Amino acid sequence: MTAVLEHAIIERLAAGLPRCHEQLNRLHESDAELIRLPNHAGVLAVTTDGLAEEIATGLYGDPELIGWMLVTINASDLAAVGAEPLGMMVCETLPPDVSPRWLHALSAGIRAACEASGLGVLGGDTNAGEVVHLVGTALGLIPDGHPLTRCGARPGDRVYASGPLGLGGAYALSRLAARAKCPTVRYRPRARLAEGRLLRGLASACIDTSDGALAALDELARRNGVGFRLDRPIERWTHAEAGAAAAAAGLPLWMLHAGPHGEFELVFTVPADREAALLLAARSAGWRPVALGRATAEPGIELVLDGEPRSLDTGRMRNLFSEVGGNVERYVAGLASLHRPGAPTVGADTAA
Amino acid sequence: MTAVLEHAIIERLAAGLPRCHEQLNRLHESDAELIRLPNHAGVLAVTTDGLAEEIATGLYGDPELIGWMLVTINASDLAAVGAEPLGMMVCETLPPDVSPRWLHALSAGIRAACEASGLGVLGGDTNAGEVVHLVGTALGLIPDGHPLTRCGARPGDRVYASGPLGLGGAYALSRLAARAKCPTVRYRPRARLAEGRLLRGLASACIDTSDGALAALDELARRNGVGFRLDRPIERWTHAEAGAAAAAAGLPLWMLHAGPHGEFELVFTVPADREAALLLAARSAGWRPVALGRATAEPGIELVLDGEPRSLDTGRMRNLFSEVGGNVERYVAGLASLHRPGAPTVGADTAA
Repeated sequence: MTAVLEHAIIERLAAGLPRCHEQLNRLHESDAELIRLPNHAGVLAVTTDGLAEEIATGLYGDPELIGWMLVTINASDLAAVGAEPLGMMVCETLPPDVSPRWLHALSAGIRAACEASGLGVLGGDTNAGEVVHLVGTALGLIPDGHPLTRCGARPGDRVYASGPLGLGGAYALSRLAARAKCPTVRYRPRARLAEGRLLRGLASACIDTSDGALAALDELARRNGVGFRLDRPIERWTHAEAGAAAAAAGLPLWMLHAGPHGEFELVFTVPADREAALLLAARSAGWRPVALGRATAEPGIELVLDGEPRSLDTGRMRNLFSEVGGNVERYVAGLASLHRPGAPTVGADTAA
Repeated sequence: MTAVLEHAIIERLAAGLPRCHEQLNRLHESDAELIRLPNHAGVLAVTTDGLAEEIATGLYGDPELIGWMLVTINASDLAAVGAEPLGMMVCETLPPDVSPRWLHALSAGIRAACEASGLGVLGGDTNAGEVVHLVGTALGLIPDGHPLTRCGARPGDRVYASGPLGLGGAYALSRLAARAKCPTVRYRPRARLAEGRLLRGLASACIDTSDGALAALDELARRNGVGFRLDRPIERWTHAEAGAAAAAAGLPLWMLHAGPHGEFELVFTVPADREAALLLAARSAGWRPVALGRATAEPGIELVLDGEPRSLDTGRMRNLFSEVGGNVERYVAGLASLHRPGAPTVGADTAA
């Protein structure tokens, strides 16, 4: 399995740092950090996520979307561990010449996403700097003390998404790939907090698609020593608007899911004997999970395209973006040429 | 009383944002945000503080000091509410060309401060950006549910510091004021976590000196509708090394305390009838609080210099740094000319 560069960076940064006695998870094991509280008060979930590259590259330009995303990227990590939202911290570094109008729109986006997520703003910090730089921290609580994590999937488990996938990839394409003739994609993902809470006690493993759906599946596969066979037709689990964007750009659907910018849905596994209960609970809540396929004992991520199983080297995909220096056109070209030696390549085949 | 510009900025950013039902404090009332936990598990303290200007201006240059300060500025907020440390989150934005040696020193500083503060690193986030930008979040717990806050001081209360003051100002002077002939000042403040915990139930109000001692006193005065008369000789509560730096630079001692860069001591008030108990508990812990003076019913901050009471417009002082665009020489000149109309000016007198 191809090693993931980002894991190596995180492990290097974490090396030698003191860990917390009360922390339940180790590195990479959950979307939020999990801390056991005293007096059976449950588990505290905390996550920190910043927006820097997303603003610098122009991926997010509209200040209201920037504010919305600052909250959503953090709230989504709470969702993936099944936490009840407690509150947000916001650290804003802003250039002195930022306009009141821009600031107002930023705050409106923060407010709207907080309201959508049931998160209050606890406090924060403001600094002056040359470039806009925003960091959010979200806190949540798992009252019963049993969070969702990325660990627990077994061969035979079904794999689902909380909604159709691919909008994150399509949006990035429409914003950043100048040569792709891709219409503007509406992008305002909602953190799946209610869905995450419902999954607690039912799903065996869960992760959000912040880095794209295939990166999420790759991570679940690594954590659990399983593979995934996505045998449901890709058209059925790809967002219709994302699909239209891919068609306009002349790209195969699977590329939308090859990240590294996702749509903040949840991807989760459920043991076969809990699948019916989960679907029933979801239906009662007015939510329809999207079936993707199943976990397998054989490693690797396999898509079924036109009835043919195709292996994807999702580890290499995850490293590709930094290998091409963040250039989207080179990324798309790189994806198309990616293949696992000895296996039929998705890229060469479907991009032809 | 002069309005504080930073308060106006924070209030504008917070306006209209949803608040948290479980939050105990309002804006400006405590150094960390305070959230009531269920099941009598106590109060959660959380704080977010970033380093951007401090790095950009060269105030902090040594990467080990930067790492140390990233932890300490956050741990100090936990100290000021009397929290037990739970853990840190670290969000690092780094330019791609940062050297492994620099990163190693940064991590060493983070590690050393975490160990000094009893904080483990829970997790974090890494981003690529043009400039170094670091944000920390610290979590703590107040098991008995009774945090220290900035509110509760009354006229007649004694006011103390956790240690001698002025090193923050002297360090900033030595780093940033090119024309001040100021020797290099050793600066590695320790978050006063043990002292903060000891103060819980004894002190009536507490704040750290992150923005300098006079700003801390100004803030306590505002929160509580009191004034402070600092009638203990300034030489007795000014750090000896800071005093030497002021003498070398030809500046009066009080200027060291006029911020906006402090030494992360605690400044706290204690009712007269609890003073003996507090000093006894401190002595048992091998700690000697430094007496500054007392709280008064009359507003304003008064220093006693050479036996003469002098009023300081600490509100104007707090605004001065942004008014002079962060220029340290202009700041020092501005401080010297600051005076309260109708009252003897400290600046004109002692700087002569």
